[in-house]
Amino acid sequence: LRKGFPEVIFCQGKTVEQVAEIFKRLSRASDTNIIGTRASEEMFQAVKKHVPGAEYDAMSKMLMRRFSNTAKRGKVCVCSAGTADLPVAEEAALTCELMGNHVERIYDTGVAGIHRLLDQVDKISQANVIIVVAGMEGALPSVVGGLVDKPVIAVPTSVGYGASFHGLAALLGMLNSCASGVTVVNIDNGFGAGYAASLINKLAGDQ
Amino acid sequence: LRKGFPEVIFCQGKTVEQVAEIFKRLSRASDTNIIGTRASEEMFQAVKKHVPGAEYDAMSKMLMRRFSNTAKRGKVCVCSAGTADLPVAEEAALTCELMGNHVERIYDTGVAGIHRLLDQVDKISQANVIIVVAGMEGALPSVVGGLVDKPVIAVPTSVGYGASFHGLAALLGMLNSCASGVTVVNIDNGFGAGYAASLINKLAGDQ
Amino acid sequence: LRKGFPEVIFCQGKTVEQVAEIFKRLSRASDTNIIGTRASEEMFQAVKKHVPGAEYDAMSKMLMRRFSNTAKRGKVCVCSAGTADLPVAEEAALTCELMGNHVERIYDTGVAGIHRLLDQVDKISQANVIIVVAGMEGALPSVVGGLVDKPVIAVPTSVGYGASFHGLAALLGMLNSCASGVTVVNIDNGFGAGYAASLINKLAGDQ
Amino acid sequence: LRKGFPEVIFCQGKTVEQVAEIFKRLSRASDTNIIGTRASEEMFQAVKKHVPGAEYDAMSKMLMRRFSNTAKRGKVCVCSAGTADLPVAEEAALTCELMGNHVERIYDTGVAGIHRLLDQVDKISQANVIIVVAGMEGALPSVVGGLVDKPVIAVPTSVGYGASFHGLAALLGMLNSCASGVTVVNIDNGFGAGYAASLINKLAGDQ
Amino acid sequence: LRKGFPEVIFCQGKTVEQVAEIFKRLSRASDTNIIGTRASEEMFQAVKKHVPGAEYDAMSKMLMRRFSNTAKRGKVCVCSAGTADLPVAEEAALTCELMGNHVERIYDTGVAGIHRLLDQVDKISQANVIIVVAGMEGALPSVVGGLVDKPVIAVPTSVGYGASFHGLAALLGMLNSCASGVTVVNIDNGFGAGYAASLINKLAGDQ
Amino acid sequence: LRKGFPEVIFCQGKTVEQVAEIFKRLSRASDTNIIGTRASEEMFQAVKKHVPGAEYDAMSKMLMRRFSNTAKRGKVCVCSAGTADLPVAEEAALTCELMGNHVERIYDTGVAGIHRLLDQVDKISQANVIIVVAGMEGALPSVVGGLVDKPVIAVPTSVGYGASFHGLAALLGMLNSCASGVTVVNIDNGFGAGYAASLINKLAGDQ
Amino acid sequence: LRKGFPEVIFCQGKTVEQVAEIFKRLSRASDTNIIGTRASEEMFQAVKKHVPGAEYDAMSKMLMRRFSNTAKRGKVCVCSAGTADLPVAEEAALTCELMGNHVERIYDTGVAGIHRLLDQVDKISQANVIIVVAGMEGALPSVVGGLVDKPVIAVPTSVGYGASFHGLAALLGMLNSCASGVTVVNIDNGFGAGYAASLINKLAGDQ
Amino acid sequence: LRKGFPEVIFCQGKTVEQVAEIFKRLSRASDTNIIGTRASEEMFQAVKKHVPGAEYDAMSKMLMRRFSNTAKRGKVCVCSAGTADLPVAEEAALTCELMGNHVERIYDTGVAGIHRLLDQVDKISQANVIIVVAGMEGALPSVVGGLVDKPVIAVPTSVGYGASFHGLAALLGMLNSCASGVTVVNIDNGFGAGYAASLINKLAGDQ
Ligand SMILES: Nc1ncnc2c1ncn2[C@@H]1O[C@H](COP(=O)(O)O)[C@@H](O)[C@H]1O
Ligand SMILES: Nc1ncnc2c1ncn2[C@@H]1O[C@H](COP(=O)(O)O)[C@@H](O)[C@H]1O
Ligand SMILES: Nc1ncnc2c1ncn2[C@@H]1O[C@H](COP(=O)(O)O)[C@@H](O)[C@H]1O
Ligand SMILES: Nc1ncnc2c1ncn2[C@@H]1O[C@H](COP(=O)(O)O)[C@@H](O)[C@H]1O
Ligand SMILES: [Mg+2]
Ligand SMILES: [Mg+2]
Ligand SMILES: [Mg+2]
Ligand SMILES: [Mg+2]
Ligand SMILES: [Mg+2]
Ligand SMILES: [Mg+2]
Ligand SMILES: [Mg+2]
Ligand SMILES: [Mg+2]
Repeated sequence: LRKGFPEVIFCQGKTVEQVAEIFKRLSRASDTNIIGTRASEEMFQAVKKHVPGAEYDAMSKMLMRRFSNTAKRGKVCVCSAGTADLPVAEEAALTCELMGNHVERIYDTGVAGIHRLLDQVDKISQANVIIVVAGMEGALPSVVGGLVDKPVIAVPTSVGYGASFHGLAALLGMLNSCASGVTVVNIDNGFGAGYAASLINKLAGDQ
Repeated sequence: LRKGFPEVIFCQGKTVEQVAEIFKRLSRASDTNIIGTRASEEMFQAVKKHVPGAEYDAMSKMLMRRFSNTAKRGKVCVCSAGTADLPVAEEAALTCELMGNHVERIYDTGVAGIHRLLDQVDKISQANVIIVVAGMEGALPSVVGGLVDKPVIAVPTSVGYGASFHGLAALLGMLNSCASGVTVVNIDNGFGAGYAASLINKLAGDQ
Repeated sequence: LRKGFPEVIFCQGKTVEQVAEIFKRLSRASDTNIIGTRASEEMFQAVKKHVPGAEYDAMSKMLMRRFSNTAKRGKVCVCSAGTADLPVAEEAALTCELMGNHVERIYDTGVAGIHRLLDQVDKISQANVIIVVAGMEGALPSVVGGLVDKPVIAVPTSVGYGASFHGLAALLGMLNSCASGVTVVNIDNGFGAGYAASLINKLAGDQ
Repeated sequence: LRKGFPEVIFCQGKTVEQVAEIFKRLSRASDTNIIGTRASEEMFQAVKKHVPGAEYDAMSKMLMRRFSNTAKRGKVCVCSAGTADLPVAEEAALTCELMGNHVERIYDTGVAGIHRLLDQVDKISQANVIIVVAGMEGALPSVVGGLVDKPVIAVPTSVGYGASFHGLAALLGMLNSCASGVTVVNIDNGFGAGYAASLINKLAGDQ
Repeated sequence: LRKGFPEVIFCQGKTVEQVAEIFKRLSRASDTNIIGTRASEEMFQAVKKHVPGAEYDAMSKMLMRRFSNTAKRGKVCVCSAGTADLPVAEEAALTCELMGNHVERIYDTGVAGIHRLLDQVDKISQANVIIVVAGMEGALPSVVGGLVDKPVIAVPTSVGYGASFHGLAALLGMLNSCASGVTVVNIDNGFGAGYAASLINKLAGDQ
Repeated sequence: LRKGFPEVIFCQGKTVEQVAEIFKRLSRASDTNIIGTRASEEMFQAVKKHVPGAEYDAMSKMLMRRFSNTAKRGKVCVCSAGTADLPVAEEAALTCELMGNHVERIYDTGVAGIHRLLDQVDKISQANVIIVVAGMEGALPSVVGGLVDKPVIAVPTSVGYGASFHGLAALLGMLNSCASGVTVVNIDNGFGAGYAASLINKLAGDQ
Repeated sequence: LRKGFPEVIFCQGKTVEQVAEIFKRLSRASDTNIIGTRASEEMFQAVKKHVPGAEYDAMSKMLMRRFSNTAKRGKVCVCSAGTADLPVAEEAALTCELMGNHVERIYDTGVAGIHRLLDQVDKISQANVIIVVAGMEGALPSVVGGLVDKPVIAVPTSVGYGASFHGLAALLGMLNSCASGVTVVNIDNGFGAGYAASLINKLAGDQ
Repeated sequence: LRKGFPEVIFCQGKTVEQVAEIFKRLSRASDTNIIGTRASEEMFQAVKKHVPGAEYDAMSKMLMRRFSNTAKRGKVCVCSAGTADLPVAEEAALTCELMGNHVERIYDTGVAGIHRLLDQVDKISQANVIIVVAGMEGALPSVVGGLVDKPVIAVPTSVGYGASFHGLAALLGMLNSCASGVTVVNIDNGFGAGYAASLINKLAGDQ
């Protein structure tokens, strides 16, 4: 294994046949979890024929082979605000789970209803790393970053319209966060956030 | 008077002589308050010779003749977070005062320290209109807009560096605010926000 | 109710089932007007089964339950120029109506035919707030703002082609308006303009 | 002569010596008017030593040798709104004059005070071509273009701040003009507008 | 008639019914040519039922009623380089014809094959106005503008890929043209170029 | 202390007096390290009068009071390539040191001379977190991220010219990194990278 | 023949009939190779009827008539990293082959796995010119350029999502390459890179 | 020597002391030509003390130690149009000379005066590689590329104003060149063009 972590396939831009072929090959060659991101239902059907235990999550478009006995390290928290951000948030959360982390999902918070967020601060603070997913103005990571003393990974989403410019507004907002400890990944890159969070959480050991 | 409001001179891009001349002429022709925005200290010196009661506020770069008996209507609240945003916030606040509004300044709040903001919600709620000035990621208007049921005028500032792109990040953030009731003016346009807030506050009558 | 106003659902990005479910729940829990923005005809059909009195406006894509006895406050005026801007203008106008405002629609004016606009100035002036919807170069709010002494909320639309860049030209034009009293919302955000206008009009009381 | 028109030197980016040398050479080689655009006072001083009749206009930064008996064709009208746009407007107007056109300057009009513009429509209509200079939102050409049936050349200026992005807002506004008959030149390019207007006016003959 | 010119309908963004209705009404109310730009084949079928003499040009997507005895003024030349630019070039050419101009089409020239252009210079020079249509780098107007002493109207097209950014590269190139006498219209705006060219050509009288 | 970490002052945009005053106040109120970022030499002189032990690093423009007995946790590695990136790299490195981390500086590596980087891989791999600072095309974080299994924080710098657009090229490159585990901060934000790295390194305990 | 090279047709934006017609005409008029770029399968079917020996490569969308006895000059190397970049890489490689060059394809290298690239350096170094195709952050040309002393032609691809902005990130990265000897073509322009590489390789003679 | 070519120092962003130190060190360690790009007069004075034979070219800001017996290979041609582009053109030309190439300078050509360019085609055609330097609309490389069958390296310059956006217009124009065989370097990067041209010319041998 290149990294001692799951094998990962970026399915977008590959044919159904290519994905099925790679998944099959990897599932034979290794006994780790396997992640296929941005996979279609059709890819899943093709993979399932060769890899019976394969699973598919339609919301995050993730294709997975996972071992139930995956060891679990300390907690990563994934926060998001809007319904439309859920696919990205779930991509991050499932990536963390398949990489051996406990995950706490907090999906009902937004900066325009700040009290719902404040009610959850204790739960958020117990995580080693916090992933914050937000579209539109992308303000949530700044607020979360100001409330906790843990590294925050901000994920802008392309959710929005008009001057959101497909996630640019959220991206710029997060890069200019006035809270310290916030770093940023590409627009809609839930996988990247989950991967980085796992590397960080691993440093904390098996607390 | 064109609008039944103060006379206004946009001093930037005019010569010291032009400003002095216009200020003198207006001060003779009318007995309303006069506002000169983006004026230099030097312009003030030139104006003072002709208009003895003229005042200058170095922070907001505003040049003013104001009548102490200006009537005062209900309250406008001006919120801002960082020290560097103060010139824009003061431009908005002074504009409101010269247009006959009571002004409440709340300058010590930022989204990365949300509790300081929450402590002031009662005071903010008593205003008819709230002007929120913010640079960097421009998240403050969304949070304020979610806490109160009054019109919020958001003013992005050019404060920041790098990917703030001279206020673009804050501008886009505010335009994409997930809180309802937020409208936006140009980057650094404290005067415009103050003027619009005054038009709105005037609707509320002398409450 | 979070705001003492109608309940609002942003339907875009939600499934038909989700929208029907939320609409049903809200219609039972509250006896206020309900607004669903950016809803499809199909969502309407699904909602109608549970909420018989639901209505749908195909132009603005608004899904509504409204009570005929909604109290009406003073007037909001909605101006627009081109046929293609009507969906956004109607989103603004209907939002105002469902939030309890009298609405005056003035839809036959454009800056390239200025006399048609001038003929309507008296009518426009009687409103407490004016919403101005425009695509392409977005010049209408400046002209209207110069003619009246009321707050103007400018809504850029994505109508245009080429260097309109999906509404960017209109947005920048409005942010740089040389008329005082103009504030701006996101591209195509008729709902946001209607909501802010309602908050402002409410300040004027039941004139 | 390359074009049967004045000789033109773009002085910006050249040294004082280079400008003086070119001006001297051209003034000897030809007996037409000579135009130096974007010239400094210092360049003028250097040129004057060699070309006694040379003139300099500090506002437009134009350096000229002009023959008083330049023939005059029909009228070009130059409109602008703000004081800060005058340098560009004058660059256009002087270019037209040195190319043998009658010029009508109308410098006191802006879209936020539409009646001042309407008062001048008759005068504007008498020109063969209209140059309209505007910064900020750049809305003036659309209004003028709707009032007259003559070609309109729009010149965006870099006047403004914040989201004017150094003239981009005005440029985009003008390119998206909803009035027919409007064409556009580069930001601050008064010379280019004057030159094109002269070519057009020449077509109209000596009316 | 608003302008003493043809009636014009911008069909894009209107329904088939709306276009048919407007076309019918205009064809009854006036006896001038009628132009519908960006019309679909389907719109044409609907219009034909009510206006038997209506014509449709599939390349330029123009819908027309034209009178064969339209008077003809002096010549407008329309140049373009690539096959993909033809729809825009034809929109310009047909607009000119319906507005009463002789049109010379020169469609086989590009800057990468400069000699084919040079072979046509005489023909181009006989026109009063030249419309130059080009996508990709948009260099053709500069070369043409340097070869003739007539006003050049440049039309950038959205033809290209990658860093053409849907016509932005051509637009910027044309605005920065180093040849004098070039003005620019919006990306793909063949109609606007044809209209402005007609206004200019009209000045030249019936030469 | 808000965060149990050093006190931090963002000096840019504050006056010399303001900085001196805040530094004095903080140095009395707390016994932690104090960091002033983007401070001028002049600010240092003013601070030194009140806080004798204050230090200044001219390259990174950091103003500091630091306690020699600051505890040291596991290692953070700071990599950069060009001489011109050093101020940002040092801002990151000093921030880490003042926050109690061991720092390994690797400043002589660039992607155009990949072997110098490969020679240092062992040293880099011993750190818990790696900060990678790069301007121009910003490719270094991808290469480093591919070589190690630790979280990488990428800092784009504004070093470059032309199409670097003041750091935009580097920023976009880093956001699109094809290596997993890379997160990004604002252009030139060495402080932010150092702060986030410290939060992460703290999780690793006192290894 | 204009260039003594193959005839080339840019098929995108042409109709099936136009492409078939041009291909037929060229195949009769000349006895060189013929290249049709961005052609559809359907165009191929239409061409095959008239030009029996025509071939089609579905990956690169190239339509070709090629003579097996095409002379071969020294080697061009085409490098790329990701599966999704292959269509562009193949467009470059096939263009080179049809223009008479030996081509070495190295398609399994990326900057996040630098050792696979290093293993191939000897092979790469034997080429006269290297074409490097990359999407996302576009870092590969800098690394390759630092390893070899030959001209490198960088081709950014539109592969990526979010802040890749359809290839802009890769384009800017390549333009800012810190390795000397790198030049760049338009996004996805494999043909352009292949053509330029052939011109260069031709200079090296028949080594 | 890393490349068997001159040693190169990028002086911009380094102190006078750093440049002098590096120059001294390199001049002792090697007996090749040395190039310092973007050097100031002051840097030259400091270097001269240690390296007596050092030369400085104020126009291109290049600092050099060159050996008169540098061998010369076949010809590189450097074309440019405007006076303001000369510093970049000279940076390219001198780089080529110090790397052992014959250089032909053709500095009096522009696309708006195409005949002056055509007069030089024979001379241009004798070079192995052509560097074309242009600002504003950047059209020259397309025209040159269409006239010759040699590789063309296009260098956009930041010369221009308004919508040239500091060289962006020229850069985009060149990337979209409709002539085959054109590749592009960064804005103002004369050095990079000269370096790449030298690598290419070297392939041609000592013709
Ligand atoms: N067209 C719209 N644009 C922006 N925000 C909207 C729009 N329609 C509704 N909203 C907001 O979306 C919220 C509801 O979002 P949701 O809970 O996702 O349905 C409302 O409270 C409104 O503030
Ligand atoms: N293709 C076009 N691009 C821009 N403006 C156009 C176009 N075609 C027509 N127009 C303008 O649109 C107006 C008619 O618009 P409408 O009343 O919406 O049909 C005409 O007067 C023209 O000025
Ligand atoms: N270089 C920097 N870039 C971004 N944020 C910074 C920087 N230096 C300090 N800060 C932040 O600014 C805050 C202090 O701001 P202030 O209270 O205005 O001095 C600190 O808590 C840091 O989070
Ligand atoms: N004007 C320039 N633009 C871009 N890169 C340059 C320039 N001048 C020199 N270089 C590169 O910078 C390297 C030297 O950088 P440095 O070691 O920082 O002096 C050289 O090897 C060149 O590749
Ligand atoms: Mg924090
Ligand atoms: Mg609110
Ligand atoms: Mg007004
Ligand atoms: Mg008109
Ligand atoms: Mg000309
Ligand atoms: Mg890694
Ligand atoms: Mg190399
Ligand atoms: Mg060629």
